Amino acid sequence: MKDARPAPPLDPNLTLPCVILDRPQLADNIGSVARVMANFGLQELRLVAPRDGWPQDRAWATSSGANWPLDGAKVFATVAEAVADLKTVYATTARNREVHLPVVTPRQTAVEAYAAAQGHQKTGLLFGAERAGLETSDIALCHAIVTIPVDPHFHSLNLAQAVNIILYEWRLLVMDAPKAAFTQNMDEPADLKFLHGLYGHLEDELEAAGFFFPPEKKESMLRNLRVVLNRARMTEQEIRTWRGVVTALTKGRGRVLAKLAKAKDET
Amino acid sequence: MKDARPAPPLDPNLTLPCVILDRPQLADNIGSVARVMANFGLQELRLVAPRDGWPQDRAWATSSGANWPLDGAKVFATVAEAVADLKTVYATTARNREVHLPVVTPRQTAVEAYAAAQGHQKTGLLFGAERAGLETSDIALCHAIVTIPVDPHFHSLNLAQAVNIILYEWRLLVMDAPKAAFTQNMDEPADLKFLHGLYGHLEDELEAAGFFFPPEKKESMLRNLRVVLNRARMTEQEIRTWRGVVTALTKGRGRVLAKLAKAKDET
Repeated sequence: MKDARPAPPLDPNLTLPCVILDRPQLADNIGSVARVMANFGLQELRLVAPRDGWPQDRAWATSSGANWPLDGAKVFATVAEAVADLKTVYATTARNREVHLPVVTPRQTAVEAYAAAQGHQKTGLLFGAERAGLETSDIALCHAIVTIPVDPHFHSLNLAQAVNIILYEWRLLVMDAPKAAFTQNMDEPADLKFLHGLYGHLEDELEAAGFFFPPEKKESMLRNLRVVLNRARMTEQEIRTWRGVVTALTKGRGRVLAKLAKAKDET
Repeated sequence: MKDARPAPPLDPNLTLPCVILDRPQLADNIGSVARVMANFGLQELRLVAPRDGWPQDRAWATSSGANWPLDGAKVFATVAEAVADLKTVYATTARNREVHLPVVTPRQTAVEAYAAAQGHQKTGLLFGAERAGLETSDIALCHAIVTIPVDPHFHSLNLAQAVNIILYEWRLLVMDAPKAAFTQNMDEPADLKFLHGLYGHLEDELEAAGFFFPPEKKESMLRNLRVVLNRARMTEQEIRTWRGVVTALTKGRGRVLAKLAKAKDET
């Protein structure tokens, strides 16, 4: 389920961004952020003046085992100090914006952060306090404002959920480089000759059962049956199973009838 | 910050997906899911057998004012009942996959769910229990498996965080949507209850025919059969036709045998 250590980075040549929480109020949220960081392969957490001090046990209790961002978390007194060694900082905020900075989407943020990471430039992803958000003066230390497209009628996004979305977009970008991570959960569909074998089998049995009535409708009835099977994109194994089904339904019933007849004879 | 009522939908012509939580354990998570739904403009929440019963005050306490998905939440005993009136269901799961269904990204899920929503076909977004995830038999009721690209070394994603990512992708699409109508060369798939009727019919007849052998394999055999039918995305008419096929194959053989017997008697 989880390791006690951070996962090896998907791409060791990347300089990973850090996550910065400005004046976080709830230790639960800090723990949830650590869990999200582990989910999406980030490691470095920075805390600016956490309200209830640091460390706090609740954070470890809610991180679901993602301890390393918490164990290694660095605490700063101000946002300015927390970003001092970074090249670029993205401020995630949904608040009224008085600062003239570019406003970018989470996706665009990931694109830019990924390019920076490839160039060994360290990026910070800054998130404000749960209730108050980011101060205008701290936003002014950043290079872009990231806005998550929440419903304007209900824009109160949980802190860890905001981090979740930015890091998800980051992860997608990192993964898109090696496609390997995504595998289709489907085996190869069978060559069509196997499907045609099933069509023929089914047709013969339905013919024997008097299914095609009136006879002039047979072609269109068959076509409709085939198209459904076609859409199912069956594997060879699945087609064998369905031939077994057809056989069972036809022979099986005969077997039951034969048994009944035999039982009757024996009485 | 928030309204007591749901926001007006961004596009009133869409048939919005519902969110289905299978056996959710923690009321806090149910509340967090409601909040995320409000953030991204969804309204209908369905709960399958919530562990601690329903309603639970903790859910309202953690929804941060997003009460309407909770107030309107419907409770079901099984996943099958919860999806009976839907056209398509996406199962979000990171678990070992025994079910042969397409695996899609959250982004692809949003694309498909959006196309369905434009065509007034109701989609369900299904999420498993916090610890246990989804049962294989419930995944087999679905049409695709959605996998969030978490780090394989730490893939324990919080329930509300999983919902968050799927709904974020949904929201992006609704906002970006090229408003051009989506047309597909397919009639509307049947409500899933019709498909479940066909499953039951087929199961009964195969049982009668002694198809399920050895008996301990019955569940996996059934699952494999269902998943093929699931993938075919049948219309109501097509399902009726296939019920006719099953009847013909079973009864028809009997009729043929009866005819043979009669012919024999007459000779």
